[in-house]
Amino acid sequence: MSSSQRRTRGKRRGQPGAKRDDILAAAIERFGRSGYEHTKWADIAADVAVGPTALYHYFESKQHCLFVIMDTALEDERARFEALTADNPDHIGVLLALLQDRFDLTEHEILRNRLLVAEQALLAHPCDSPREEAVRQQARLHTSELGLAWAGFLERAMEAGAIADAPPRLTARAILGLYNSVWLWYRPNGTVELNRMAGFFTDRILAMLGVEPDRVRRLGLAA
Amino acid sequence: MSSSQRRTRGKRRGQPGAKRDDILAAAIERFGRSGYEHTKWADIAADVAVGPTALYHYFESKQHCLFVIMDTALEDERARFEALTADNPDHIGVLLALLQDRFDLTEHEILRNRLLVAEQALLAHPCDSPREEAVRQQARLHTSELGLAWAGFLERAMEAGAIADAPPRLTARAILGLYNSVWLWYRPNGTVELNRMAGFFTDRILAMLGVEPDRVRRLGLAA
Repeated sequence: MSSSQRRTRGKRRGQPGAKRDDILAAAIERFGRSGYEHTKWADIAADVAVGPTALYHYFESKQHCLFVIMDTALEDERARFEALTADNPDHIGVLLALLQDRFDLTEHEILRNRLLVAEQALLAHPCDSPREEAVRQQARLHTSELGLAWAGFLERAMEAGAIADAPPRLTARAILGLYNSVWLWYRPNGTVELNRMAGFFTDRILAMLGVEPDRVRRLGLAA
Repeated sequence: MSSSQRRTRGKRRGQPGAKRDDILAAAIERFGRSGYEHTKWADIAADVAVGPTALYHYFESKQHCLFVIMDTALEDERARFEALTADNPDHIGVLLALLQDRFDLTEHEILRNRLLVAEQALLAHPCDSPREEAVRQQARLHTSELGLAWAGFLERAMEAGAIADAPPRLTARAILGLYNSVWLWYRPNGTVELNRMAGFFTDRILAMLGVEPDRVRRLGLAA
């Protein structure tokens, strides 16, 4: 599924949940472009033409909204991971599909990724508000599940001899750490094109896993 | 220079600047352990037995103090990078020394690294306060200089055939991104020992650069 197909998933204007989706989309743009700290909750209300009081019907606070965005991003990532790995014994093919999918992003999704990485330290410490704390714990659980899903996949690929033997949990941390680090500096329409950057980081991840680029090319799987 | 030698650099109690150093050290502990957002500026004042008003003599705000910590960490990293790379034509030896140095850390330095990575998004957007803004710009300059220093070193190593050819700037981003990502999850006294983690990530960075681990072992340079 391409990113443009994924974009049509959202609910339509006027449908139940549409206003909540509008708030989330506006918050991703504001937080992603101006920074979470620098964004005023009232600006998001103005973007979606909702009074500040009505905004609180959907989200208790700016932080609550941020945590919902982060958790949704993690859930999406996990769901796509499951869809691409399920019942496919071709480990190298799956690995390449996973990496390709993780770089096939709209500008909005890039902003969401930046937010997920830039603000992840906020997930480390308990919140006083029960609603914030519930979403925080859910996001932490989804972070941990995604890491475990990667580690499980890597372990199976190691057992099958598709990639070099190494501790699977640490290897998953290395892949996700390298991948996530991109969104702290990458800017759409900057000096580095998305395709070129994606190709470069995909090759580095394959090198880290001991997969020969030649082997990938022979399989005809490279972009 | 080992981390214990580095620690003796700080000024002694009673000397000019000692109180400022005490505040910075207390802030690293508080920000690093409880999170920057969750730390109250007044708690740091209490830690070093300074009234909140006197604290403002040294730092204008909690954020000003954070930016000074981040900038100092970046300056230290850059100075150690210069010392280890200067006039040494043995690129693989220098690379290993750089990586070894970056993992030879006290618990306090690990907390400082975590802070540097976890809060780097705060450096992205201008501040209203001139004092905060001055340190922010300095920290951004030092971040960029460190990246350029790495890229320059990698380019020379590529020209000498010591590591695989690749775009030097992107390669520097990949190394620093992978290295920095560690401090978001690594906890001293956790399940993964510092030595084991350092060895694992050093090997992954070498693999990413196309350096054979066997070659490193033959040189007798591996830990």
